[in-house]
Amino acid sequence: MNRKLFRNASIFTPVDRGTPLSGKDQGKVVCLPKGAVYCRCGVIEDIGEERELLSRLSPSQVDVEIDCGGRCVIPGFVDSHTHMCFAKRREEEFNLRLDGVEYLEILRRGGGILSSVRAVRASSEDELHTVTKQLALSALRLGTTTVEIKSGYGLDVESELKMLRVIRRIGRETPLDVVATFLGAHAVPEEFSTTPDDYVNLVIQEMIPAVSAQGIARFCDVFCEKGIFTVDQSRRILETARTAGLAPKIHADEVHDLGGSALAAELKAVSAEHLLRASDANIRAMARAGVVGVLLPATAYSLKKAYAPGRRMIESGLPVAIATDCNPGTSYTESMPFVFGLSVLQMHLSVSEALVASTINAAHAIGMSEYAGSLDVGKKADLLLLDGDSPAILAYHAGVSPVVQVYKQAEPVHET
Amino acid sequence: MNRKLFRNASIFTPVDRGTPLSGKDQGKVVCLPKGAVYCRCGVIEDIGEERELLSRLSPSQVDVEIDCGGRCVIPGFVDSHTHMCFAKRREEEFNLRLDGVEYLEILRRGGGILSSVRAVRASSEDELHTVTKQLALSALRLGTTTVEIKSGYGLDVESELKMLRVIRRIGRETPLDVVATFLGAHAVPEEFSTTPDDYVNLVIQEMIPAVSAQGIARFCDVFCEKGIFTVDQSRRILETARTAGLAPKIHADEVHDLGGSALAAELKAVSAEHLLRASDANIRAMARAGVVGVLLPATAYSLKKAYAPGRRMIESGLPVAIATDCNPGTSYTESMPFVFGLSVLQMHLSVSEALVASTINAAHAIGMSEYAGSLDVGKKADLLLLDGDSPAILAYHAGVSPVVQVYKQAEPVHET
Repeated sequence: MNRKLFRNASIFTPVDRGTPLSGKDQGKVVCLPKGAVYCRCGVIEDIGEERELLSRLSPSQVDVEIDCGGRCVIPGFVDSHTHMCFAKRREEEFNLRLDGVEYLEILRRGGGILSSVRAVRASSEDELHTVTKQLALSALRLGTTTVEIKSGYGLDVESELKMLRVIRRIGRETPLDVVATFLGAHAVPEEFSTTPDDYVNLVIQEMIPAVSAQGIARFCDVFCEKGIFTVDQSRRILETARTAGLAPKIHADEVHDLGGSALAAELKAVSAEHLLRASDANIRAMARAGVVGVLLPATAYSLKKAYAPGRRMIESGLPVAIATDCNPGTSYTESMPFVFGLSVLQMHLSVSEALVASTINAAHAIGMSEYAGSLDVGKKADLLLLDGDSPAILAYHAGVSPVVQVYKQAEPVHET
Repeated sequence: MNRKLFRNASIFTPVDRGTPLSGKDQGKVVCLPKGAVYCRCGVIEDIGEERELLSRLSPSQVDVEIDCGGRCVIPGFVDSHTHMCFAKRREEEFNLRLDGVEYLEILRRGGGILSSVRAVRASSEDELHTVTKQLALSALRLGTTTVEIKSGYGLDVESELKMLRVIRRIGRETPLDVVATFLGAHAVPEEFSTTPDDYVNLVIQEMIPAVSAQGIARFCDVFCEKGIFTVDQSRRILETARTAGLAPKIHADEVHDLGGSALAAELKAVSAEHLLRASDANIRAMARAGVVGVLLPATAYSLKKAYAPGRRMIESGLPVAIATDCNPGTSYTESMPFVFGLSVLQMHLSVSEALVASTINAAHAIGMSEYAGSLDVGKKADLLLLDGDSPAILAYHAGVSPVVQVYKQAEPVHET
């Protein structure tokens, strides 16, 4: 049962060249109109035109054959930026925002990130796990096979570790591959509101060492923004984290051009996120430094903001990834098909660029390109069967997921 | 089994006053935080606060009790403008459009509406039925319980009648309530390209009488647009249709301010659709004439166009409905939750205005307010259970349907 042949598939996949794809390469996707994928124990052993692939196989080497009916097959989505570990939705706050209440006023009334912090602190690990798992499994059904999840609603040593344990459990108890990012510097918690530097010291002196000692996160991220963490504070945190074995990521230049993307280039961060206000010079600097720009169009959609200049970034040579930013405040969506559609229709990426952005470049942005992001031999057989002829169906079928089956390591996720 | 009590529901519903809701009334929705609905044979017999409603019932009057778990319950969506009867998707054309190919060039290459016409003409009734039913059932699972479907991809007497027979079968063979609209004047078919007036005569002299004689459509619609049908041609068609018992609807002022909305006001049409270019004077004229403005935000989304000025229309007193425009060219979506989200986040309707627009005003726009559009006593028990506290979840949970169960005449649609 562990040797599977997917045949009669219209395969679209990027080819992994070992580094994120940028510029014209971001739009290059291989198409096998009548393709096949052969897997053993959930790993891709061969891929190619069906006729050629079959000539390399004897029938006795196939335990299960899956006829894809000529439909489009793409790699599983890699959602490279989420905050999907939280205790409570913030539907009420969404209503306030629609009524025109300003974010600072929402904060004053106890809303915003800090309300998520209160809810996470008050939740047991099991409660937090239940909410997170439900969302993660929904993401999986929508085609996400690899996901990054950040902490950052704990903001004290024990609550941050609690979040990271929950994130680890999601990786163990669901088919998803989960990458954990420590985001202690997501906001300054209420108890440090008048002494933010003391909180930065807590992150540096206690949180990072504890997270590192437990080996419970792979990346460290910082919300570098006016009124949140300065460029200098961000640099101190990320340099400490790197020394402790946590590779740096940065929420940069989302609301103001504060210099977060310059810092990302300086530190050669794995990725820089949001980037709505990043200057052209800093975009080019990040491109030279090998940073992946992770764009979050559903956040712009939900906040009714302008979209990040994805096209300009690609033209400037910055490899672009797209992600949901799934969180209870500014982007409550776990749907990569929706984000794919937004990136094409609102950020003007081509369909091929969006496919690269949601698979291989995203895999590079979270250090998972060895396993995920393309249908290359040796990678996990994470693949999506779409109700369509090409990946364009992800934008064309607006607001409806065309993912009819998800195969995680060749095993079907949807009931069959 | 035919007497059902829905209890522990957070009910949000417009109240039907017999006419479409406009101005400030468009934003008025009743909320019963701990409400209940009592139905017999799929019809609402009582609705109110649970405690009060229970005091009016004896336990022996309830066969089945459904605990809604405190979740939000709203009326089923009424999708008041669709072209979901078609034979083939136009995914390839979507790709061309993304590549910047102009619509006229797409037409020249055999795309656009006329390619759907060729496909419908070449399809058997059963083939057309299979495609349409699949889409209609998907719409039902996404919360649409009443739907309008237009002909208009046949453009000859027999093919238009074939479409209308398929639309009737959808109404008979699915739980959906289906309203058929004859749209022979959707485009000028290729064989009349040099003699468009002859086609108008065919619509007037042969199609309308045939449709009317068979009693197979309730409305007649016209695509009144520069290069399609003029205001004078539209008037002739709609006046003939009205005399034959088909109430008028108009695709008006979508691309140019041609005068379609003025004609809608003049004819006191049931509805006018699209309206992206309608002037303020014509918006007020339609409001005075009792026309419902049917806005189609997913079309603007898919075409990357500006949205219709929904807020301004509401402030001008025009009752507004929202619909999917589901069609294979310019808006391939059957999701009312998606359209709801767009209307709130992109057209700036309030959540309550969007709820009215997608239920009671939409029901009035297709003559179905006796049966649908609100949870009033005597109407069908078409109700949606949402995974959320309020209808805001439809916009807040971006790109994901929060409809966890659809009850059509009190019967569950999703597997339980």
